[in-house]
Order: sequence, then C-alpha cells, then structure tokens
Amino acid sequence: MASKTKYAIGFDLGGTKMISAVVADGKILSRARAKTGAQHGPEEVLSKIISVIYESIEKAELKKDDISGICLAVPGPLDRDKGIMVYTPNLGFVDYPMKKNLEKVVGLPVLLENDVNAGTYGEYKQGSAKGYRHILSLFPGTGMGGAMILDGRLYRGASGNAGEMGHIIIDRSGPLCGCGNYGCLEAFSSRTGMAKEAVASASAGKSPEVYKNAGSDFKNYKSRVFAEFYHSDDTIQKIVNRGAKYLGIGMANFVNIFNPEVIVLGGGVVEKLGRIYIEKAEKSMRKYALQALSKDVTVVEAALGDDAVILGAAHILFDEAV
Amino acid sequence: MASKTKYAIGFDLGGTKMISAVVADGKILSRARAKTGAQHGPEEVLSKIISVIYESIEKAELKKDDISGICLAVPGPLDRDKGIMVYTPNLGFVDYPMKKNLEKVVGLPVLLENDVNAGTYGEYKQGSAKGYRHILSLFPGTGMGGAMILDGRLYRGASGNAGEMGHIIIDRSGPLCGCGNYGCLEAFSSRTGMAKEAVASASAGKSPEVYKNAGSDFKNYKSRVFAEFYHSDDTIQKIVNRGAKYLGIGMANFVNIFNPEVIVLGGGVVEKLGRIYIEKAEKSMRKYALQALSKDVTVVEAALGDDAVILGAAHILFDEAV
Repeated sequence: MASKTKYAIGFDLGGTKMISAVVADGKILSRARAKTGAQHGPEEVLSKIISVIYESIEKAELKKDDISGICLAVPGPLDRDKGIMVYTPNLGFVDYPMKKNLEKVVGLPVLLENDVNAGTYGEYKQGSAKGYRHILSLFPGTGMGGAMILDGRLYRGASGNAGEMGHIIIDRSGPLCGCGNYGCLEAFSSRTGMAKEAVASASAGKSPEVYKNAGSDFKNYKSRVFAEFYHSDDTIQKIVNRGAKYLGIGMANFVNIFNPEVIVLGGGVVEKLGRIYIEKAEKSMRKYALQALSKDVTVVEAALGDDAVILGAAHILFDEAV
Repeated sequence: MASKTKYAIGFDLGGTKMISAVVADGKILSRARAKTGAQHGPEEVLSKIISVIYESIEKAELKKDDISGICLAVPGPLDRDKGIMVYTPNLGFVDYPMKKNLEKVVGLPVLLENDVNAGTYGEYKQGSAKGYRHILSLFPGTGMGGAMILDGRLYRGASGNAGEMGHIIIDRSGPLCGCGNYGCLEAFSSRTGMAKEAVASASAGKSPEVYKNAGSDFKNYKSRVFAEFYHSDDTIQKIVNRGAKYLGIGMANFVNIFNPEVIVLGGGVVEKLGRIYIEKAEKSMRKYALQALSKDVTVVEAALGDDAVILGAAHILFDEAV
C-alpha cells in the first residue's frame, strides 16, 4: 500500500444487500448501502459496488486519496492471493477477478476476504471475543459459517478456504445436508436444516398455527418463526432444542480438536433465538467435550451484529495487508 | 538455553518402553532404551529416564555439556509452560513436575512435548510431510492421536492440549468410546475400537480361527491380528473396512475445517494394515469432503516409524526453545 492513512473501507457484499463503510480506528464514519441485485449480472453488481464505495467516501467527507484501501468481504470460496471470487453463483460470480476489476476502476488497493472471517475478526478486535487469542466462531443462519483465530491470527488453511465448520459429519443417521452428505452439523442446526424439519411436520398437521404462518415453502421458515413459536408449539420447540443440542456436539468436537479459549456464536438463528439457543448449545458442548479441554472454554454471543463484518474487514486491511 | 550446541536429546517416553537419542542435524547418533516399568512408581521411572539419558550421551561419545537440552515427548495432557505431566495415570504421573525434577538432577534444560506432536513434527521436518506447511496427522493405534501443523507451526491450542482428534463424534449411533461418548472416531477406527467389535463377534462364533488365536480378551486383538486375518475372515475384513471408512469420514471433517495440504497417517493400525487401510480411508475422505477442499489434499503414510518422535522432539528443541 503506497500511502497509508488511518481510513479504510470495510465492505460487506451479501446475497441481498451490500454495505460500504469508511472506518477509522475501529469507528464507522459513514455507511452507504444498496441492494445487491445479483439477477442483473456481475458487471451490474460491480458498478453498484463502485458507486456505493464512492458514496461512503463522500458521506465521510473524505477524498478517495484519504483511503488506504478496500477490504471486500464476500461469501463463498476465494482465491485470496489472486483476488478471484471462485464460486459464488448466487451472486453471479464464478472465477471472477474482483480485485483486478475493482482496482482498475477505483484506483485503491483491494483485498478480498471471506465474510465469516471478517465478522469473526471484528468480534476479535472489538467485539465479544476481544482479549482472547484462541477463538472459534460459528454462525448458524441460512447455512453455517465458521472461522478460527489461532494464536491471534486468522487461520485460512492451505488454499484459503478453511472453516467449513457446518460440513462436519456428526451423525451419519442424521438428515440430508445441502452438500449431499447425511448428518452434517449444518443439517441439524442451521435455519435451513431446522426449516426442512419444521415444514415436514407442520405440513403433516402437527403445527397448524405454524403452517398458517409459514406455509409449505421451507424458505418461509425464518429464524423469526422459530423464535415466535418456540414457547407455544411443541414440535418447533423440539426441533430448536435438537438444533441446539447438535450445535453443542459440533462445538464439543471443535473444543477437542482446537482447545480454544472462547466460542463465539452468532448468525440469524442465534440473533433471533438468543439465550434459548446459546444456553442449550453450551450445555450440550459441556456434556460431550473432554472435560480437560472444556473446563476453560467460554461461550459468548457475537456482539457487533452487522457491523462485525465491515469493522473486521477494515482491521484486516490494516493488520495483514502489505 | 545458555550454551547452544548442535546436539540435542530427543526422548520418547512411552507406556511400555522409553528411548533416549542424541540427535544432531536430523541424524540419530546414539540410542539407549529401557522398559518403562510404570508399576514401580514415578520416582523409579524418573531414575530410569536419567540413566537412559546418560547412556545415550556416552554411546554418542559426548559429554553432558555438549548437549543443548532435552525434549521429552510424553503421552497425556501437559502443562507445557510449567513442565508438568498433568494426567498420565498409566505411567504413574499425575500433576508431576517432570521438567523441574529432571532438570535438577541432569542439569540440562528440559522441554516437555506431547508425543503425537513430536512425531508429527518429525514427519514435517524430515519425513513424509516434508515440504508441506499445512499438515494434519492421525495415528490410529491403541487410541487415536492427532496433531496439526498450521502454516509451518505446531498448533497446541489455548492451554496446550489441542489435538484430541480421536474424540470427535461422527456418528451418534456408533459404538461406545472409552471417553464415555458414543460414535467417536476413535471408537470406530482405533485398534481398541476395532478390537471390541472383533472380540464380540469372534466370541459369538463368527470367527473361530481368530478366536483360537486371540481369545476373549480384546487387548489380545492387536493390529497384527487384523492384518493376519483380513483376507481370510469376512468379519475381520468388515470391521477393518468400516474402521477405514469412518477414518475417512473423520479425515473429511478435518479437511472441511482446516483445508490442509496433506494428511499423514501412522500408528500401529496403519503400520500393520498398510495400503489396505490407507487407500480405503482416502477413498472415503474424498467421498465425504467438499470437493473444493479435498481436491488439493494428499494422503501419505508416516515414514519415520519410531524415530519420528525422537527426531521431532530434537527439532522442536532447536526450533522453539528460547
């Protein structure tokens, strides 16, 4: 990075919306948003990214040259070194040279980062994992993301795509996962996993109120639905409790492997169900993990919400970029 | 370390035997051995350790002051910083200040290391994982040890006891594990896990030849027995194949979590069954891991045998000691 300033852009590119934020010293100075609109194709998304970046710089009353660089947090597998989004078909990006294309137009250094890594890094630098150095995060939402901070550094694996925590098999007799295997952690504890279970039993007449509310499309079984009916519907409660229990089994596996100090839980399911989900998951983890390893581990809820990704992205730019 | 020479002692303290070796530049100059004899108590074991250390120095035709230090590779949980063997009851050591007691008598700096970590480090520095920087090892034997080298460094976790790879739950409907959970990787794929399965069916009349050979005590079902009867006994073959398949599921979980470059397989089961076990495990891993992560991973057999631990211990002393 040629001229290093204290300003960075943390950018969260999601499936439905994008946020560009100017960040300095861990504070968000401005935000600009747009709908991603992936259906219009990658070039359209790119031009939205660019205009949202400029908007956030203007809102912060800065000039482009005041900015050190952009860290773009994106879903899906990356070639981080080359700055390529390898396979994010729902955003229209397949083998897409995002870094090159964005740098060409904007003229600022661009770093690509996995969004779960960025969010976890945000929680590490200034959220609920602050002060720890051995951190594992799990974000049950539509899928199940996860990340590792090991001895104070993000661990990304050999080709940069470590952290598919949702796709560890924990019960071979379990439900079919989106990846094609049976019994992945994600198939039990993500919103999608619980939704498929819920739609089956609701449509079989077990939860008429839930069915009235959410119908026969499992995509309508949002985390909100599980939170709303948890106390009034036995089947929903059972599905949520099972999700939390299996999340705890997954957490126990990670504790036995990693010996972390803290596990950060976040994502849509945790945000909507809160303590119900976290406490049951933690209890299950403590039941199944080796006591010598679980005794020192703390379980916390992610604290920064949507800001975790943009803050984490900005921190990564300063801490890791060369 | 006050006076740093090129000589180090790599020490392998096992449940039945101990080996002290003088190592220089990755070469073993001398070896001395003794039976551990844990039944005689920790002080007796300590004095054997000391005499074996001196014997190895003499055999190398060196003096004590020629040695930089001792890295003692031991099983069980450690407090590495304090040099305490926390809980290795089968060796008689519980909260035992090994570093302090050994340094007091021998007068050389002592470093404690987990034996699986040491063995994996040996394979990394000069064995079958040489040249890789993101390494996962699994050693199915009596139990199932494992270790991680992440970005070129041993990862030990927050309190130094990461790597309980055998105790990840992969099938909740699986057999009872020694840890009290059902369906741990170790319960399927370690020698003990397979032995409990084999003794049950052999004693039920399914494998008369095996029963004649190994009887009703599962501890007699050594890896050698599985190798010997693999081709002639259907039940044994089925148990071994299942062990390898589930080892592959565990490997798939680790691939999805870590995105390693290489998985090193070793331990008694792998040594005795060889390619039979490795090929089936690898095939299963490739079936269950996400293809984006498994495509670049290589599976290799540990190459250094018993020397891995003493060589790795010596390397750790030079690479990490201060």
